[in-house]
Amino acid sequence: MADIEEIRKLKARYFRLLDHQDWQGLSDVFAPDARIDVSSSTVSGSGRGVYSSRDSFVDTVSKLLHGAVTVHHGHTEEIELTGADSASGVWAMEDRIWFPEGSPVRTLWGAGWYEEEYERVDGRWRIKRMVLRRQRLELDGNPID
Amino acid sequence: MADIEEIRKLKARYFRLLDHQDWQGLSDVFAPDARIDVSSSTVSGSGRGVYSSRDSFVDTVSKLLHGAVTVHHGHTEEIELTGADSASGVWAMEDRIWFPEGSPVRTLWGAGWYEEEYERVDGRWRIKRMVLRRQRLELDGNPID
Amino acid sequence: MADIEEIRKLKARYFRLLDHQDWQGLSDVFAPDARIDVSSSTVSGSGRGVYSSRDSFVDTVSKLLHGAVTVHHGHTEEIELTGADSASGVWAMEDRIWFPEGSPVRTLWGAGWYEEEYERVDGRWRIKRMVLRRQRLELDGNPID
Repeated sequence: MADIEEIRKLKARYFRLLDHQDWQGLSDVFAPDARIDVSSSTVSGSGRGVYSSRDSFVDTVSKLLHGAVTVHHGHTEEIELTGADSASGVWAMEDRIWFPEGSPVRTLWGAGWYEEEYERVDGRWRIKRMVLRRQRLELDGNPID
Repeated sequence: MADIEEIRKLKARYFRLLDHQDWQGLSDVFAPDARIDVSSSTVSGSGRGVYSSRDSFVDTVSKLLHGAVTVHHGHTEEIELTGADSASGVWAMEDRIWFPEGSPVRTLWGAGWYEEEYERVDGRWRIKRMVLRRQRLELDGNPID
Repeated sequence: MADIEEIRKLKARYFRLLDHQDWQGLSDVFAPDARIDVSSSTVSGSGRGVYSSRDSFVDTVSKLLHGAVTVHHGHTEEIELTGADSASGVWAMEDRIWFPEGSPVRTLWGAGWYEEEYERVDGRWRIKRMVLRRQRLELDGNPID
C-alpha cells in the first residue's frame, strides 16, 4: 500500500509540475530513458508525439506550451505492483489548454487514459513508460477524429 | 486499507469499462442482483433508470450509448467498511456524452454523486447498490430541473 | 497510511458538504481558528477572501452561494505527514458555479490548487490552513487576470 501511495503521488506531481511549467521537476518524474507516446494529443498532425527519452519529451512540451495556460487532471487510478520494483497503472485524464494569441490553435479540450509502467531505482519510483489514448479531443471546439 | 484500495479500483473499472463500452467487463463490476438507480440521468423522462439486476442495467445502457462517445469521471471517494465483507461509499462524478447524429439529444453534461454499497463474495468486491443523485444536468446545453 | 486515508476523506467531505450547502457540516471540517485564503476566487474584487476563522469563512460563503448551484471537484492529492498530529497537502481542483437569476455574475468556472495544512485534535483531523491558488478563472465565460 505504501508503494501504491508513492506512485499515486508521483503521477500527481506529473500533473502539477506540468501545469506549473516546472520543466526540471517534470523531467524528474520520468526515468531517463522513458518511452512516451502522447501522439493522440498532437496538435499539428500524425507522426509527432512519440519520444524515447524524458529529455526529448520535456524539451518539446516546454516549447509547445510556451505562453499557454494548461489544466491537466487525473482520475481513478488503477495501480498494480508487478514486481518488487515495478508497477503498472491506468489513469483517466482530462486536459484543457489555452494557447497564446496568434497561435494556429487557441484552445484544446480532451479526455482519455494514461497507460503507464513504473520502476523503482535507488528507492525512487519513476514513470518508465507513458501512453496517452483519447476518447475525445477538441481543437478550437471542433472534435478531431 | 487493502480492502479500500480494492473498492477504489472496482469503481475505477466501472468508469473505464463504461467509457470503453466493454459491456461484459462492466457487468462483472456488479453483483448479479445489484440494485441500480440512475433515474437522475434519464434522457427520456421520469420513470426510467431504476434496475433490479446488472443484466437489465447493462442491457439498457449498452443500447442507449450505442454509437455515442462518453466521458465518466469519478472523484474524492469516501469509502467505509461496514462489515467483514460489506462497505459503503460516496463518489463525486462528472459525465459527458456525445450522442450520434440524428439522436433526439446530441450532448449531455452532468455532475452528481454515486451513493453505493459493496459486498465481497468469493473474495471479490462488487457493487451491490448504486444510486446516482445529480446537482446539475444539461441536455444540449440546457439545464434540466 | 490510515492517517492519509482519513485526511483524504476529510477533504472529500469539504467538497461534498460545500456543494450540498451543509454549512454546519462544512464548518466541522475546519479547525475553529483555521486560516483560509480563497481570494483567488473573489467575484467582487481584490481584498476579499481571506479569513482567520472557520465561522467567518462559512458565514461569507453561505451568503455568497445562496440560491446557487455549485460543483467543486478535487484531484490527485499529495498528502505528507509532517508530525504525529500534523500533515500538509496539495489538491488540484475545478469548480463551477451557477448563480441565481439577477446576480451580477451568472457563471464561474475555474481550476487551481488547494495548499493545505491539517492537524489532529482529540483524534480528529481537521483543516488548519487552506489557500487556493488558481491557474485559470472565468466569470460569465471571460477569463480574469
